[in-house]
Amino acid sequence: MKYPPHLLRLIDVLRKLPGVGTKSAERYAFEMISWPKHKVEEMAEVIKLSPDMLRHCYECGCLSDIEGCSFCHSTHTRIPSLCIVAMPRDVFAIESTHEFKGIYHVLGALLSPIDGTGPEKLNLQKLKRRITSLNIEELIIALDSTLEGDATSLYLKQELESMNLSISRLAFGLPMGSSLDYVDGGTLARALSARGRF
Amino acid sequence: MKYPPHLLRLIDVLRKLPGVGTKSAERYAFEMISWPKHKVEEMAEVIKLSPDMLRHCYECGCLSDIEGCSFCHSTHTRIPSLCIVAMPRDVFAIESTHEFKGIYHVLGALLSPIDGTGPEKLNLQKLKRRITSLNIEELIIALDSTLEGDATSLYLKQELESMNLSISRLAFGLPMGSSLDYVDGGTLARALSARGRF
Repeated sequence: MKYPPHLLRLIDVLRKLPGVGTKSAERYAFEMISWPKHKVEEMAEVIKLSPDMLRHCYECGCLSDIEGCSFCHSTHTRIPSLCIVAMPRDVFAIESTHEFKGIYHVLGALLSPIDGTGPEKLNLQKLKRRITSLNIEELIIALDSTLEGDATSLYLKQELESMNLSISRLAFGLPMGSSLDYVDGGTLARALSARGRF
Repeated sequence: MKYPPHLLRLIDVLRKLPGVGTKSAERYAFEMISWPKHKVEEMAEVIKLSPDMLRHCYECGCLSDIEGCSFCHSTHTRIPSLCIVAMPRDVFAIESTHEFKGIYHVLGALLSPIDGTGPEKLNLQKLKRRITSLNIEELIIALDSTLEGDATSLYLKQELESMNLSISRLAFGLPMGSSLDYVDGGTLARALSARGRF
């Protein structure tokens, strides 16, 4: 006895969510079948509206809603530091630290020869234009500590070095609350070589 | 900087999926924002259609689609054994074993005083009517091995004993491929007391 065709379709669309395999999608689907109709329709409606309600700001790449980009609206009240991140989500992670009062620039991608993401995807012309027009003095590269993040950081540094900016990258070291036993060798080596006066 | 209102709504509806917390819902939401519009709309459409395309059969409680219940359609070709399960999903699990060629009855609930699920939710009248009208000779209780499953099994046995049926329940013992080291004491005790001639 196989699943009814629409159930298969439902499982199939749910499987497109990140990290969701067939087992989880089946669980979600069976749960949804037991919901009252209005609850299912509310979910469908909210999902359907998303592409119109949530966009990436054309200027900074941050997430914006129908009222426009709240970051670009408040650029004049922020300090002339530009924080470069890979994805819109990273902006919220950095904002939640309350440690940065500057402006953001979302690249939208990281260099990755394997996935075919070359320098042209990073749209460096736009970044350079923003640095000039916003009179940016400091550049903070806040990219992942991965092969792709390292490559992109290095590329940005090479390309932007000549613009007379102070360029920095997020520090590497022990995560807060970690125990040396559980920290990998690479992290420990970085933490050691970048040790600070105590 | 807080999330835009619609993003909060999207995260909120996604959190209603079973086992999905705020972190997973955020991950799903940010992934969906990066999808092309037609992909988001397809998901919304499939979800929206589900309540109309997938129903619970009024007769047996199994999942049925717009063409009706495939189980009830094929009742006459199946043997007069009735397998009682808690949820529509359990039917597919048992069907996939190819070990049972009988008819199903989905209770839709298990007795649970804490959640306020009493015997009236089990709709025993309908079950008794089906047993009589389908000339059922054997009853297989295939409920969870939990407090609620045990209580419901016992209750069904008491209520249906007088109907002159052979009543059995799924066997308890070691799961296939398990190692004694990892099996809990309760399971091991059941496996021991129900040991079979080898």
